[in-house]
Amino acid sequence: MSPQPTTTRTVLRPVSPPVLDQRFVVTGEGVEAMIVVMQTGSNDTQIQAVIERLEEHHLRGHLVRGAERTVIGVVGAAIPPTLREELEHFSGVKETLRITQPYKLVSRELRPIDTVVDVRGVKVGGNRCVVIAGPCSVESEEQIITTARAVREAGASMLRGGAFKPRSSPYTFRGLGELGLRLLAQAREETGLPIVTEVMTPNDVDLVARYADVLQIGARNMQNYQLLEEVGRTGMPVLLKRGLSATIEEWLLSAEYVVAQGNPNVILCERGIRTFETATRNTLDLNAVALARRRTHLPVIVDPSHGTGKWYLAPPLALASIAAGADGLIIEVHPDPDRARSDGGQSLNPENFAALMPKLAAVAAAVGRSL
Amino acid sequence: MSPQPTTTRTVLRPVSPPVLDQRFVVTGEGVEAMIVVMQTGSNDTQIQAVIERLEEHHLRGHLVRGAERTVIGVVGAAIPPTLREELEHFSGVKETLRITQPYKLVSRELRPIDTVVDVRGVKVGGNRCVVIAGPCSVESEEQIITTARAVREAGASMLRGGAFKPRSSPYTFRGLGELGLRLLAQAREETGLPIVTEVMTPNDVDLVARYADVLQIGARNMQNYQLLEEVGRTGMPVLLKRGLSATIEEWLLSAEYVVAQGNPNVILCERGIRTFETATRNTLDLNAVALARRRTHLPVIVDPSHGTGKWYLAPPLALASIAAGADGLIIEVHPDPDRARSDGGQSLNPENFAALMPKLAAVAAAVGRSL
Amino acid sequence: MSPQPTTTRTVLRPVSPPVLDQRFVVTGEGVEAMIVVMQTGSNDTQIQAVIERLEEHHLRGHLVRGAERTVIGVVGAAIPPTLREELEHFSGVKETLRITQPYKLVSRELRPIDTVVDVRGVKVGGNRCVVIAGPCSVESEEQIITTARAVREAGASMLRGGAFKPRSSPYTFRGLGELGLRLLAQAREETGLPIVTEVMTPNDVDLVARYADVLQIGARNMQNYQLLEEVGRTGMPVLLKRGLSATIEEWLLSAEYVVAQGNPNVILCERGIRTFETATRNTLDLNAVALARRRTHLPVIVDPSHGTGKWYLAPPLALASIAAGADGLIIEVHPDPDRARSDGGQSLNPENFAALMPKLAAVAAAVGRSL
Amino acid sequence: MSPQPTTTRTVLRPVSPPVLDQRFVVTGEGVEAMIVVMQTGSNDTQIQAVIERLEEHHLRGHLVRGAERTVIGVVGAAIPPTLREELEHFSGVKETLRITQPYKLVSRELRPIDTVVDVRGVKVGGNRCVVIAGPCSVESEEQIITTARAVREAGASMLRGGAFKPRSSPYTFRGLGELGLRLLAQAREETGLPIVTEVMTPNDVDLVARYADVLQIGARNMQNYQLLEEVGRTGMPVLLKRGLSATIEEWLLSAEYVVAQGNPNVILCERGIRTFETATRNTLDLNAVALARRRTHLPVIVDPSHGTGKWYLAPPLALASIAAGADGLIIEVHPDPDRARSDGGQSLNPENFAALMPKLAAVAAAVGRSL
Repeated sequence: MSPQPTTTRTVLRPVSPPVLDQRFVVTGEGVEAMIVVMQTGSNDTQIQAVIERLEEHHLRGHLVRGAERTVIGVVGAAIPPTLREELEHFSGVKETLRITQPYKLVSRELRPIDTVVDVRGVKVGGNRCVVIAGPCSVESEEQIITTARAVREAGASMLRGGAFKPRSSPYTFRGLGELGLRLLAQAREETGLPIVTEVMTPNDVDLVARYADVLQIGARNMQNYQLLEEVGRTGMPVLLKRGLSATIEEWLLSAEYVVAQGNPNVILCERGIRTFETATRNTLDLNAVALARRRTHLPVIVDPSHGTGKWYLAPPLALASIAAGADGLIIEVHPDPDRARSDGGQSLNPENFAALMPKLAAVAAAVGRSL
Repeated sequence: MSPQPTTTRTVLRPVSPPVLDQRFVVTGEGVEAMIVVMQTGSNDTQIQAVIERLEEHHLRGHLVRGAERTVIGVVGAAIPPTLREELEHFSGVKETLRITQPYKLVSRELRPIDTVVDVRGVKVGGNRCVVIAGPCSVESEEQIITTARAVREAGASMLRGGAFKPRSSPYTFRGLGELGLRLLAQAREETGLPIVTEVMTPNDVDLVARYADVLQIGARNMQNYQLLEEVGRTGMPVLLKRGLSATIEEWLLSAEYVVAQGNPNVILCERGIRTFETATRNTLDLNAVALARRRTHLPVIVDPSHGTGKWYLAPPLALASIAAGADGLIIEVHPDPDRARSDGGQSLNPENFAALMPKLAAVAAAVGRSL
Repeated sequence: MSPQPTTTRTVLRPVSPPVLDQRFVVTGEGVEAMIVVMQTGSNDTQIQAVIERLEEHHLRGHLVRGAERTVIGVVGAAIPPTLREELEHFSGVKETLRITQPYKLVSRELRPIDTVVDVRGVKVGGNRCVVIAGPCSVESEEQIITTARAVREAGASMLRGGAFKPRSSPYTFRGLGELGLRLLAQAREETGLPIVTEVMTPNDVDLVARYADVLQIGARNMQNYQLLEEVGRTGMPVLLKRGLSATIEEWLLSAEYVVAQGNPNVILCERGIRTFETATRNTLDLNAVALARRRTHLPVIVDPSHGTGKWYLAPPLALASIAAGADGLIIEVHPDPDRARSDGGQSLNPENFAALMPKLAAVAAAVGRSL
Repeated sequence: MSPQPTTTRTVLRPVSPPVLDQRFVVTGEGVEAMIVVMQTGSNDTQIQAVIERLEEHHLRGHLVRGAERTVIGVVGAAIPPTLREELEHFSGVKETLRITQPYKLVSRELRPIDTVVDVRGVKVGGNRCVVIAGPCSVESEEQIITTARAVREAGASMLRGGAFKPRSSPYTFRGLGELGLRLLAQAREETGLPIVTEVMTPNDVDLVARYADVLQIGARNMQNYQLLEEVGRTGMPVLLKRGLSATIEEWLLSAEYVVAQGNPNVILCERGIRTFETATRNTLDLNAVALARRRTHLPVIVDPSHGTGKWYLAPPLALASIAAGADGLIIEVHPDPDRARSDGGQSLNPENFAALMPKLAAVAAAVGRSL
C-alpha cells in the first residue's frame, strides 16, 4: 500500500454527459481496454484521426469529452499489442493507459469526473441530491395524482410508480400495465414531475419508453442482459437497481452492458442485499454506495424503503445514505399505506415524507451538498 | 408437532403426467386455492360436471389424474366462500381441501405422487436417476460431437450445452447462438441423446424450442417472469435452475409460473447458492433438494459443477446428491477442460466422468434407485 | 398494522442509569417477563412492598427509576399466572405489562428512555455523540502515546487499543498482553482519555478490569456466555460488538446476559456482518443501528473501520452512522498505517482522522445532536 | 491449471496418529512453515540430529511418523532463509518443502495420509464411518440410559449428550452441568459407548475432561482461542464444530490452534452454515466436507441434525454426507422428541434412527467404506 493521502472529496461539477456514440461487438475472451488521453486543446481533426485508425483495426472508439480532459475509450479482445505505441505518436495524443477493472466504460479510470444524468432538466449526479418519491404501484387516478401533488409539495423532484410489477407469486397483483403508464403521464402533466417506472421485459421497452422519463431496471432483472441492452439502445436515462445478491463488481458490469450500447445515462441504485438477517427485509449496504462512488463516475442513489422494508426505518437510513455520499434517494410514499396493494409496510405516508425532507436538506448541507 | 411417524420414502412409480390444460388469469390479491378430490371410481361425466360448475363461477379447474386419486385444482382470487360446500354435494366428489402453501399447482398437497417428465422417452422423476452431461458452451462441431459420444458411452441419457450464455461482462464469449443450436441438433442425431439448452429471453423461445428437447432457465433468470410464462406456453419440458439467492419458496413459486400456463413438465435444478464462503464458487444446498422433494411433486435434479465450481468436488457432491434423493444430475464435461471457453475449471474430462458413472450407480442402488 | 403515526425522534436526555442491583438465576424453559409500572409519585415504601411480595414468590425485581416513570422488571419461569392481578391491587402500582420480546431487561418495553453509560465522566447514549479512537493493537509506548495525543487533539473522547488480540491464525501477533494494558494506562494518564480494550476470556477479566475503563467484548466472543456473565459481574461499562453473523435479536440477547448480572452499563457496537460481498471486509449494517435504537434503551455505536475494512470508506460510513442515529463511533487510527502490525489497511492516519471530526460535528448538528 | 488427473480416492489405512509432542510460541508476523522430509529408512539418530539443529535455531520440530514417510514440521517466524539448504545436507534428510497454506500442521501438505483419532478403541478417520448419536441435552437418568441403549442397539459407536448448553437467551435451560456429566458416565458404563460432550469455557476443561472421551467445541466457540488451546493441552480427542459463518480456512486455522498445542486428535465437524434460507435452520455445506477432506489430514464428520434443523431432513442428509466422503456422523436422537427440553424438532426418535442405520451402511458400502 502506498502512503495514504489526505482524503479530499471529488469536487462535483455539472458537466455535459459523455458522448458514447457507437455500438461495438466483442465475441472473444480476454478483453482488453485502454484509454487514449488527448492533450489539452486537441482538436476534432486529431480526435477523428485516432478514431479512424482504431477503425482500421476494427475497433470502435468511445469518445468521452470532459471538462478537464478528452479521452477515447477502446474495449476489445482484438487490441494489437503494439497499438498503444502506435497511437502515442499521433498528433494531439498525450498518452495511452490500460483500464485494469473488469468494467471499462463506467470506470473512474476512464472518466475521473462525475457523470450527470439529465432527466427533463432534473440533474442526477451533480451537487444537488435528488429525491424521487411515489407509491410502489400505481393503483388509481386519485391515488397517483394525490401522491404526486403531495411529494412535489414536500420537495421531491421526480415521481416513481410501478405499472408493471415483478411478483414472486403468479397470483398477486402485477400492476395496471399501460393504464398505469397513462396515469403516470397524467400525474406528470399535473405536477411537472418527471416519472420513473419499471420495465420488465425487452418487448415492453418501446411501450414504457413512450411514457417514462427514466426506465427502471428492477433488482430481479439486474442480470437480464437482453433487457439491459434494449434499454441501452433507447439512449434514455436508466435507473439500475442492484440485484439482491449481486456483488458491486457485477452491478457495475451490468451498467457496462447499458453504456456499451452507447447510452451513458445510467443511475445506479442500491436497494439492500439479501443476508441472514430477518428483522429487516433486506440489508441496506451503504458500504457499496461509498465504494461505487469511488469506482464509477455514474451517479448512485439509494432506495431506503426496499433497503429496510419498514417505513419507520426509511427516514434514518435515508439520512445515512446522503451522509455516505449518495446522489439521491428513491422513497416509497403512499397516501394510505395500510391499504396499499403492495409494500404498504415500507411506504411513508405524505406527512412523514414531508417531515423527512428538511432533515435530508440539513444532512445534505452538512456534507457540502444541497437538496 | 404431532407424534413423529417412521419415515418411509415415497414409492416412486412412473405415472402419466398431470393434465393441466387451461390457462387462467388472476388479477386480484388474496388468492385462495382448493382441491376437489374425486371418489375412487368417479367417471368423466362427474368430473366434467365439476369443471362446468367452476366455469359458471368463472374459475378454471386443473385436472390431475393420479394412480391413486383424481383431483381438480382450483386457484383464484374469486373463489366464493360457499363453493366448497356446494361442490361437496356433487356426485363423485369425495371432499374438498384448501392448499395452504403459497405455491399451489406444484405443491404435494395437490398431487401427492411424483410427477414424471418425459423427454423423448427419457423419464425424469421416476425410479431411475437421470444423468445429463456436456460442455458449458457449444464451441465447435468437433467439441460437441466428441463430448456427446463420450458421455453417451459412459451412460449419460441427455446432452447439455449452451448456445446462448449469460455472462456478467458484456465483453466475454456469449455463445455461438443459432449455430450452437444446430450443432446440438447434429449431436442429437449422431447419438440419440435429447438436448438441454438455455433460453435467455422471451423472444428467443421459439427459436430455441425448434432445436431443444428441454428448455433451460438459468439461475439469473429464475425470476424473469415473462420468460417463465413464455416457456410455460410451449408445453415443453423446462429445466428451472434455482436463483443464487432464491429461497426454496421463491423457487417453487417460479415453477408455479410455468405450471400455471398449463405446462406441468418442470424439472427443478439446485445449482448452489451464494454465501460468504469463497473457497468454493457456490454452496451446494442439498437441504433444499431433500426439502423440495417433500414440498413439491416435481422432479429435482442437481448441478454439482456450478454448485462447487471445482471439477474435483463435482464427483463427491454428485454422489451426495443422489444419496440425498435427487432425481438426477446435470454435469459439465469437456474434452479438454483447460482450453474451454467458459467454466473449464469446473468441467470433468471424459475419463473422470466415465469413472464417476459406476459410483453413481452404486449409490443409486444403495438408496433403492437405479441409474 | 395500525395507522401510521408521524415519526418523532425520541428526545434524548441524560438520565441516571437504571439501578439493576440483583442477580437471579432461571433454570427452566418458557420464561415469562413482566413489568410492574408504579404510579407517578409512588414512594420507596410502596416499591419495597412490591419487591418483597416478589421475593415471597422467589422472584427478584429489577428496579428501573426513570425520569418519567419507575418500573420493576420481573423475569422468571416461575411467575404465577395470578401474580399480575395480585400486584395490581398494591398501593402505588399503576399497572402490570407483559414484555413480549425475547430480551427483557434491555428492551424498550421495560425502559422507554435511553440509558446513558457514564465512563469516567464521558456520557455514552446522551445527546452528545462520542468518538472513541486509537490503534487496532498497542504496539509500543511511542505508538500509543503519539496516537492518544493526536486523537485527543482532534476531539476524540476515549482511546481504544488492543492488548489481547483474537487472531484467526495461531501464528500471528496476538498483542502485548499486560504490557499493552500498562501502556494504555500510561496514555490515559498523559491525555485524560478513558480507555477501551478487549478482554477475551473469563480468567483475564480481573486483570483487564484493573486497567480498562470499558471492557470490550469482540465480535467472535459475542456468544461466549461465561465471558458475558463475568464482565456482567464487574459492573463496569461493557462495549459489546455484534457477532459477524449474529441477528439483531441474538445481539440483544447477549446484552441481556450482561444486564441480567445486574450490570446495566452496556454499549452496543455494530461492526459489520459477513455477507457474500468481497469488495469490502464486512457489510456495515446501519439498518441494525436504527432498529436497535428502537428496540433497546442501550446506547448503540458503530465501528466503521472493521465495518468496511478500508480506511477510505471509514469516513463516509462514519458520517452515515451518525445520520442513522448512532450514539457514537469507534475508529481505528494509527500514526503510520502502512507499518501497523494488524489491520493497517483500515486505519486512518491522524491527519485524515482530524479532517473527519468537523464533518462528523456538522452531521451530528444536522440530526439535532452534538459531538 | 495443469492437466487434470483421473480422480483416485485416497486409500484410507489406519495408521498411528502423528506424534506432535512439543509446544511452541510464535510472537511475530510473517510466519513461515516448512517440512523436512526424511528418507525412507532414516533412523532415530538422524531425526534427533535434525531436531537438535532446529533447537539451536530456537525452533521446535513437530515429528510426524507416517506409514509412507516421516517428516518434521517446523513453524515459526524466525526460520532463517538459509535453514532449508542447511538441513538438506543432513544425513537421512531427503528434501525440505515449504507449506503454502495458512494452516500448517493440519494441512495435507505436511501429512498426505489420513489421521485416525482413537477414542477408547473407536477409530475416527479410518475406512469405517463412525456414528455418534444421542440427545441434544442430558435431561434425566432414564432419558440418557434409554437413549444410549437404543442407539447402541441400532449400531451407533459413541454417545453424545450436552451437560453444558450454550443458549442464545439467558433464560432458557442451560443443561444439568456436572450432574449431566455423571449421568453420561453412567450411560457409558452400562453400554460401553464412549461419550462426546461439550465444554464451553477454559475453566471447565478439567471438569469435563474427567468424564468425557471426546471434548466437543461448539460452533459458537470455534474462535474461542483460549478454549482451543486449553483443550489442546489435554491431549484428548477434540470434536471441533465449524462456526456458523466460518470459512473453511478459518475452521482449519482453529484446528491448528489445538494441534499447535501438541494435540493431533482433532475431529472436524460440519454442522451447517448461516445463509439467507429460512426454510431450514442452517444450510448444510457438504462442499466443505469434500474440500476439507482434500486440504487436511484430519477426519471430518457431519451433524445433519443441526445442519437441517428438521428431523425428517436428517436422514437424507446423513446419507448424502457419507456419499460426499464424511468420516462419520453425529445425530440427535431423543426417546420422545416432542418433550425434549431443547432441539426436539430436529431429533430422530429411536425407531427412525434404527431405520436409518442400514441405509447408511448401504451408502457407505457404495463408496467403498463400512459402517
